[in-house]
Amino acid sequence: MRVEIWSDIACPWCYVGKARFEKALDAFPHRDEVEVVHRSFELDPGRAKGDVQPVITMLTKKYGMSAAQAQAGEDNLGTQAAAEGLAYRTRDRDHGNTFDMHRLLHLAKARGRQDELIGIFYRANFAEEATVFGDDERLVELAVAAGLDADEARAVLADPAAYADDVRADEREAAELGANGVPFFVLDRTYGVSGAQPAEVFAQALAQAWGERPQLTLVQGEDAEACGPDGCAVPQDR
Amino acid sequence: MRVEIWSDIACPWCYVGKARFEKALDAFPHRDEVEVVHRSFELDPGRAKGDVQPVITMLTKKYGMSAAQAQAGEDNLGTQAAAEGLAYRTRDRDHGNTFDMHRLLHLAKARGRQDELIGIFYRANFAEEATVFGDDERLVELAVAAGLDADEARAVLADPAAYADDVRADEREAAELGANGVPFFVLDRTYGVSGAQPAEVFAQALAQAWGERPQLTLVQGEDAEACGPDGCAVPQDR
Repeated sequence: MRVEIWSDIACPWCYVGKARFEKALDAFPHRDEVEVVHRSFELDPGRAKGDVQPVITMLTKKYGMSAAQAQAGEDNLGTQAAAEGLAYRTRDRDHGNTFDMHRLLHLAKARGRQDELIGIFYRANFAEEATVFGDDERLVELAVAAGLDADEARAVLADPAAYADDVRADEREAAELGANGVPFFVLDRTYGVSGAQPAEVFAQALAQAWGERPQLTLVQGEDAEACGPDGCAVPQDR
Repeated sequence: MRVEIWSDIACPWCYVGKARFEKALDAFPHRDEVEVVHRSFELDPGRAKGDVQPVITMLTKKYGMSAAQAQAGEDNLGTQAAAEGLAYRTRDRDHGNTFDMHRLLHLAKARGRQDELIGIFYRANFAEEATVFGDDERLVELAVAAGLDADEARAVLADPAAYADDVRADEREAAELGANGVPFFVLDRTYGVSGAQPAEVFAQALAQAWGERPQLTLVQGEDAEACGPDGCAVPQDR
């Protein structure tokens, strides 16, 4: 079974939701047969690469809330994160464009390191002091921590076209699947779960999708040219 | 859409079938949205690692055919391979245990190099003079040609348990899906195609599976804690 998770590094509920999903997955009897793929979604795709500002400033400017309201939201998120055992800096976090991180996540997918890298990006963005925005070498350092090659990560960052189409394809697919926000979880392309739901909801969705896995229909074709325990069939009339 | 292909490196029809499938995939309008995963299947799992013999000898001993019949089969396979543009040595090929190659293919999957490695293994086994059996350093060389790290490949070969469970899990799954021989193609776990069918059969299966992709059902849960273009929802009662 395959679970695809659309998320953004700048999305606090994605950080929390991933932990809740993983709690359900860890307890799922068929967890070894579940493959997780991370898909790209940008909450703020219009923001320029160099445009970095404190989260509280962004919240007050973009959504017109007061600094106190914005801070209360961050404090609540910090509490929810702590309940999942996650560190969360409720003060002085930055907000910025995440496109380059998504491009690196696609490089990491190609190198079998995606799950490592997204965990490292989340922790860096939500829990560590050094900002993840506006400093390519910081991203290279995080990529290396996930097992990627520094020069390869640097080359991706230096070429704005590298994996850009993959990020946009993920985002197009999110729209096609009806995802307006993230995190958005898709199980075997059959069941969708929107938001950082409690672990029990993920557990139920996993069980449901598992129980309803599709049955295989054999496509009719000509006599199979195949090899088996009794040798390789060699049809005479082909 | 995802296509899983069960195959063995020692399976001539897998080599030919992969080329026929790829011809259909190259012409498929949604090819960029098709992910291909290779799964393990051993035709001769009982053969000891060091037990290597000429293919013709294996065929006469195992299936009781004459050397002339065995050679005629190889010649026919050579013709079928050539029709797909594939090189095929019809003389002096070796046969042996492929478990280690499957373990390396799982390492390659984890590193995003599986498709490269299986192509290199097929070419080495069917078209090149140096045998792929009984020489770990030959396998390391091929793994490096696929972009894997030599030391990492060597470590996998030195540890018989490395990726062994992954190979066996693939083989168990093949049995559960009803695959008695290879190649065996599974599209979105919905349609199966057995054997090195003509490209047209694969084209039809791709179109059919694409047209019947499942629709997404949203699992009901509590109010979504999610982030979207309008900010991050913070339900008050949680």
